[in-house]
Amino acid sequence: MAFQVGVFGASGYSGQEAVRLLGRHPHARAAFATGSASGLIDHQEGLERSADAYLLALPHGVSARFAQKLRSRFPQAPVVDLSGDLRLASAEEYQRWYGQPHEAPELLGTAPYGLSEVHREAIRGARLVANPGCYATSVLLPLLPLVQQGLVAPQGIVVDAKSGATGAGRSPKPNLLFCEVAENLSAYSPGRSHRHVAEIEKQLSERCGRELSLTFCPHLLPLRRGILSAIYVEAEDVSALHQCLAHFYAEAPFVRVLEPGSAPPQLAEVAGTNDCRISVHAAAPGRAVVFSAIDNLLKGAAGQAIQNLNLICGWPETAGLPGGRA
Amino acid sequence: MAFQVGVFGASGYSGQEAVRLLGRHPHARAAFATGSASGLIDHQEGLERSADAYLLALPHGVSARFAQKLRSRFPQAPVVDLSGDLRLASAEEYQRWYGQPHEAPELLGTAPYGLSEVHREAIRGARLVANPGCYATSVLLPLLPLVQQGLVAPQGIVVDAKSGATGAGRSPKPNLLFCEVAENLSAYSPGRSHRHVAEIEKQLSERCGRELSLTFCPHLLPLRRGILSAIYVEAEDVSALHQCLAHFYAEAPFVRVLEPGSAPPQLAEVAGTNDCRISVHAAAPGRAVVFSAIDNLLKGAAGQAIQNLNLICGWPETAGLPGGRA
Amino acid sequence: MAFQVGVFGASGYSGQEAVRLLGRHPHARAAFATGSASGLIDHQEGLERSADAYLLALPHGVSARFAQKLRSRFPQAPVVDLSGDLRLASAEEYQRWYGQPHEAPELLGTAPYGLSEVHREAIRGARLVANPGCYATSVLLPLLPLVQQGLVAPQGIVVDAKSGATGAGRSPKPNLLFCEVAENLSAYSPGRSHRHVAEIEKQLSERCGRELSLTFCPHLLPLRRGILSAIYVEAEDVSALHQCLAHFYAEAPFVRVLEPGSAPPQLAEVAGTNDCRISVHAAAPGRAVVFSAIDNLLKGAAGQAIQNLNLICGWPETAGLPGGRA
Amino acid sequence: MAFQVGVFGASGYSGQEAVRLLGRHPHARAAFATGSASGLIDHQEGLERSADAYLLALPHGVSARFAQKLRSRFPQAPVVDLSGDLRLASAEEYQRWYGQPHEAPELLGTAPYGLSEVHREAIRGARLVANPGCYATSVLLPLLPLVQQGLVAPQGIVVDAKSGATGAGRSPKPNLLFCEVAENLSAYSPGRSHRHVAEIEKQLSERCGRELSLTFCPHLLPLRRGILSAIYVEAEDVSALHQCLAHFYAEAPFVRVLEPGSAPPQLAEVAGTNDCRISVHAAAPGRAVVFSAIDNLLKGAAGQAIQNLNLICGWPETAGLPGGRA
Repeated sequence: MAFQVGVFGASGYSGQEAVRLLGRHPHARAAFATGSASGLIDHQEGLERSADAYLLALPHGVSARFAQKLRSRFPQAPVVDLSGDLRLASAEEYQRWYGQPHEAPELLGTAPYGLSEVHREAIRGARLVANPGCYATSVLLPLLPLVQQGLVAPQGIVVDAKSGATGAGRSPKPNLLFCEVAENLSAYSPGRSHRHVAEIEKQLSERCGRELSLTFCPHLLPLRRGILSAIYVEAEDVSALHQCLAHFYAEAPFVRVLEPGSAPPQLAEVAGTNDCRISVHAAAPGRAVVFSAIDNLLKGAAGQAIQNLNLICGWPETAGLPGGRA
Repeated sequence: MAFQVGVFGASGYSGQEAVRLLGRHPHARAAFATGSASGLIDHQEGLERSADAYLLALPHGVSARFAQKLRSRFPQAPVVDLSGDLRLASAEEYQRWYGQPHEAPELLGTAPYGLSEVHREAIRGARLVANPGCYATSVLLPLLPLVQQGLVAPQGIVVDAKSGATGAGRSPKPNLLFCEVAENLSAYSPGRSHRHVAEIEKQLSERCGRELSLTFCPHLLPLRRGILSAIYVEAEDVSALHQCLAHFYAEAPFVRVLEPGSAPPQLAEVAGTNDCRISVHAAAPGRAVVFSAIDNLLKGAAGQAIQNLNLICGWPETAGLPGGRA
Repeated sequence: MAFQVGVFGASGYSGQEAVRLLGRHPHARAAFATGSASGLIDHQEGLERSADAYLLALPHGVSARFAQKLRSRFPQAPVVDLSGDLRLASAEEYQRWYGQPHEAPELLGTAPYGLSEVHREAIRGARLVANPGCYATSVLLPLLPLVQQGLVAPQGIVVDAKSGATGAGRSPKPNLLFCEVAENLSAYSPGRSHRHVAEIEKQLSERCGRELSLTFCPHLLPLRRGILSAIYVEAEDVSALHQCLAHFYAEAPFVRVLEPGSAPPQLAEVAGTNDCRISVHAAAPGRAVVFSAIDNLLKGAAGQAIQNLNLICGWPETAGLPGGRA
Repeated sequence: MAFQVGVFGASGYSGQEAVRLLGRHPHARAAFATGSASGLIDHQEGLERSADAYLLALPHGVSARFAQKLRSRFPQAPVVDLSGDLRLASAEEYQRWYGQPHEAPELLGTAPYGLSEVHREAIRGARLVANPGCYATSVLLPLLPLVQQGLVAPQGIVVDAKSGATGAGRSPKPNLLFCEVAENLSAYSPGRSHRHVAEIEKQLSERCGRELSLTFCPHLLPLRRGILSAIYVEAEDVSALHQCLAHFYAEAPFVRVLEPGSAPPQLAEVAGTNDCRISVHAAAPGRAVVFSAIDNLLKGAAGQAIQNLNLICGWPETAGLPGGRA
């Protein structure tokens, strides 16, 4: 009998994608899927229903509460939380970035950060995983190895990121109507105010051993899927950046570092896959730009959640996931 | 009788837009409009036809040749060249960036750079104007005053620019097909290799009195019109940036500097107008991001060309142009 | 002093467009513009404010109530109602199609149907005009003259209509989100159930002197503006259809009947204008297809409302409206 | 060892999709894939290379020539031709619709028409299959059973079909540029002039035993994938239409006839799958509309080609194909 996965929050784009992926997974299947409407959350539908593992694609706040109840009721069942609730270090930091108290502060620090390629071993042994944000995934996959190796100056990093509209969720907000998004491009949360900055800086700071502040500007694109991040860095040796990344991801099935001289990766190349494509280019003297392209619903959300479930359960890392290398 | 304007290159998007604008101009009208197919250029159709002024929306190389012939045949007739042929300082630099010899090097240095708000006086007295590139317009309008005032560090400037597909022209190239552009985003000429870098650096270097290198990455958006540029700078005092720009453009009818705390300008706000909207935001400590939004076919090409014609001819600067302030 | 026009319902796409058009009208200007949120309607903001004429871009039901109050308070002030409240013949029919009682049944039958080119004389003398629906405009402009002349079989007419998403309004409904509309096409209200069928059949039946039933299927397009209707008819003589329409609209500035052999009109040709483009083509033996293209927010709503105001006020029919013939 | 399939014409969208499908087929894989540039065709690259079966995604004319050579050289190898070369009855009819002589008239009549659900048995026994056109597939799946059962009047059928831009191919034509297709809708080949009319009428006429002429108007949509056809028919009993189709396709894994009262199928529901979704709705008295939605590159081209290969080779009909019922 297949491994049963309960999906909470399947009415949103990420949860919907998780259910779709489970539909063709060789080892697991969706046991149940609930929506995320408020009524439903009040009644905590599904919390009585047992499964072998759980994916939480719920709004933040709600998600921590669910994670806590699932942990206490089914301590052996793996839980992957796609919200931002378990990604930060402390309740204070959570309050600062999310503007509300944390619902289950005792869980903070107990869940490894689910950037699969970077924290693979910690994820394998975990029962609770904090799945990374979509922007954070697109930035950290290329940037973490470079910062860790000291190849880029830790200060002055600039990230200009562009996301498809599924990244903004499925709530019917006026600014997400077709007629507002089509033939338009808008930047939002400019500078350093987007919540994903917190988890990016936390991960980078841990790697380089000191506090690090980056500039981060996300944009809403008139397309459905994909994040393309341009990461501008100071670096003495551009070719060393490529070598570092090519080496770091040599065995990673979903991360492809393009050859020097390649054109930057395009969103259409990664849409519908769990892949991340990275390229490195020289810029002004002493500077470089690193591009990173992912599908925000796959590698940026549900795909990486399944990848983490694969790691936890000991299945092949690529099981049930589109893309990847042979 | 209305002032007669001959438009060369009206089969492209910029030339087409110029003809459209002339169709509702209160003081001028299109005398004739030619295409830009090679056969046509060989025969130099229209060069025999007299007009009161000329707009050149031709491919580079061809444009310089036409400008030269028009200058010698009709020395009193104003000519606005929308190509890149007259924007650089020397034939050597032209060869380097355009990969071919300049067709009329004697014209280099004779035409003021047609960034209307910045070079207004020089344009008023000119007979030949080098209309700026679309990306260059979007970058220089916010950046020139800041560099001139010494408010931003001249090195380390990073520009991440995004353009609608009309900016790539109307030639039927495979990568410009609907199915290749829709649901896609691609960066190109990454780092410092786009031709507009040359004219941006030239203008900035002249202002700050020394050589300046910037990082510039353009992107192709799945929409038709508009350029949104994010300009990342080092700056000690972010509020000074806003004050400088608000003061510099206080009287400019087409440039609007948004109030501090505003959301960044969106492309839909400027599409179909000759406006440029600018906003300034704090970023990581010691850093700021400046956004600039224009319609690439209007303020970035045909609109600014008409604006320059208005200046040359002594008409109101806003005559015949959509947008602008009352 | 300019003629003052009050716009109710300016938060929707049609009302917004009306305000924009008034902004460049040579004889009129917007005196005030209100939104259409429910709170606002309860308080009937603006009903105290006098103007020289009124445009109602309100939800149906609300609109009839406003029309009634304006009629009684300012009997000399022209009112153009863009809702469906005044288009049908009786309160019974209104109840049947709109599912609610009519709010001001005494107004029914008092307002001419504002299809400008067809009811020009009645509109000129009116103080209250029922502006046609967008689909109805696109269908009736080509079909009314053909039915009246008896050139097409009155039964068996099939209309397949496609509209841009602004036609669905600006309320944040889940099915109007960018990610639901982009890369999608959906038919809705198939067969004979869309409300505009009622006003189309009413107009056609009045012309041909007997009841007439048509098949009508609207579709939601992944674009913002425009309606393209394909009207399939039985007709013995296809060339007679073209002649009839060319003759009928010979003097109409906004309606252009394309020459036989032309390609069908495209939405991009009419977007941003108050024009209607029509073409006639032979189909299977004894059958023809007539295409009609308009901008749903202009000729299909706010543009035709201004055109009707022009007629009422004795201004040139094209005043302040984009498009039209010289 | 996997079954080896040679793909000719893999540079186009259909060929590309065929290669992608073979990449995850459980029983077959792509042995080689060639482009369709003219140089390549002159040299007939790949014709020397043996495979177990061949898919031809080549331009018409070229395709018949390739089919002929493959038949004579590898008579046992199944060949599925995705072009229109083998779909018509005679060289005369081919000349009339394609405007050029047929390149291999001796093949005409030897290949069953590959509408998988309708000609399943003939396909199973064939070595050469004429894969249907995309529009033809979308029309014939719902219409053939209805015509065969005599449930709809054979004359007066009207088809209004809308296709995504991949249906227009990948040749860089000016009218297929992003800026020409986006925010636009255009009808083309109106009335009865599109080539697919020939194969639709041929199939229908064979079923109803007499000549039949239909009206057919295709449209180019601003999206990438999918065909939605609205088929307007005269029918006395609408519920009989649904029953007929539901019964006919009861066992077909890829065809789903929606329940009465359902909303019409949307393109987004079938995009990326080999499914066809059909709905039936009452229209004006005595009339009905039948909607049919497919992905033009899958069920309309490469997907149906693989489905036919599955039938020929005796594999499960759904092998390697997205969509389908459990």
